[in-house]
Amino acid sequence: MEQPYALTNPVFAGFLVAAGLMILKLMLQGWITVYRMIHADAGLLNPEDLLPGPANRDPRPEQLEPNDYVERSRRVQRNDLESIPAFLAAGLLYVAIRPAPALAFTLFAVFVIARLAHTIAYMTGQRHEVRATLFSIGSLVVVIMAIQILIAGLRAG
Amino acid sequence: MEQPYALTNPVFAGFLVAAGLMILKLMLQGWITVYRMIHADAGLLNPEDLLPGPANRDPRPEQLEPNDYVERSRRVQRNDLESIPAFLAAGLLYVAIRPAPALAFTLFAVFVIARLAHTIAYMTGQRHEVRATLFSIGSLVVVIMAIQILIAGLRAG
Amino acid sequence: MEQPYALTNPVFAGFLVAAGLMILKLMLQGWITVYRMIHADAGLLNPEDLLPGPANRDPRPEQLEPNDYVERSRRVQRNDLESIPAFLAAGLLYVAIRPAPALAFTLFAVFVIARLAHTIAYMTGQRHEVRATLFSIGSLVVVIMAIQILIAGLRAG
Repeated sequence: MEQPYALTNPVFAGFLVAAGLMILKLMLQGWITVYRMIHADAGLLNPEDLLPGPANRDPRPEQLEPNDYVERSRRVQRNDLESIPAFLAAGLLYVAIRPAPALAFTLFAVFVIARLAHTIAYMTGQRHEVRATLFSIGSLVVVIMAIQILIAGLRAG
Repeated sequence: MEQPYALTNPVFAGFLVAAGLMILKLMLQGWITVYRMIHADAGLLNPEDLLPGPANRDPRPEQLEPNDYVERSRRVQRNDLESIPAFLAAGLLYVAIRPAPALAFTLFAVFVIARLAHTIAYMTGQRHEVRATLFSIGSLVVVIMAIQILIAGLRAG
Repeated sequence: MEQPYALTNPVFAGFLVAAGLMILKLMLQGWITVYRMIHADAGLLNPEDLLPGPANRDPRPEQLEPNDYVERSRRVQRNDLESIPAFLAAGLLYVAIRPAPALAFTLFAVFVIARLAHTIAYMTGQRHEVRATLFSIGSLVVVIMAIQILIAGLRAG
């Protein structure tokens, strides 16, 4: 039987696309936080960040206070970190248990779309219900994959 | 030689069970936080969460203050995030270096049991010593796997 | 074609070394936080940590207040958690798309060195510019790998 982690396996190719997008999303959020720190000239975390220099031309003690514009991006990233690493691990193992391609593509696509939409909803301050729905959809995809991984492992063991 | 990520490899089958359980555990903790937010009607993080609606029928400013019942679940999840993703990555690579099955099963089982017991101890407010012991056991499993991965990579290189 | 996750694949052997080091680094940071909590006798997170016992011989309420010596190690770990799990997932998928070995070794080595240097810079309180540069280098490595993963997936699909 052909090995699952080959580019000739369409499910793996689909996962590469989903995983590549989600890893880029995760890294991009760090850069959005940096951009917001520079733009708001606030949201610093360390006493040494008040040293004058290229990263801080006009240091002021209140730059160390929480700034909601910056903290919001950090909250988005923390939310991502609660599900994207789990999706990456679950998806990689899911590829190995050889799921039906149509189901696999659907799960990968739903997760990617739900997480990107969650970030947009969070960054633009949409209602709690919108965020909660998008969070739940992404979470459910990971749960479905994890249950299938668990069953495949128990059956094979 | 047969490829490692096949269901016919008992070490991989064992890892699928351990990883499936740990991914479910990680996702479940997010849902416990949501349940506690609803139950305590508190622990919200964003100003927009005070909009009246299905998710918040009686908004009050103090809902944005930290609530220990909700925060405890978030602390459990943060603790999980410090070790479960590392376990998932370490375990996946560990499977590829073809460990002795008995040792691998033991490490996987010890990690899963230690992490589930850690959550129970944390959620029920057990003494620091209990949590610390369970945290240490899980951490040690990941360290052992990481050292073996490192050695295998150095030897093969 | 030989499977990518074999010790005979030099790119995979190199990734095992890089991943082993980064997983050890991630776990070690948790232990540095524990060491700092013991050394400063502060930085506790839970009310039950004030119970007298081997882990806390002289409990005082102010032990629950944030302590910068302990919090600094937690900030380093949070920073690690924003990029090391992403590196582990990206690197594992990157191995599967069979990159040029010289490029792969360079990316793995640059990431490992940048992250270790970032931790040293953070723990010793170096200027924001130093940390930002090292953070950016590590982030860029993950972005490069993620883009290559995405392209490989799209081409194969």
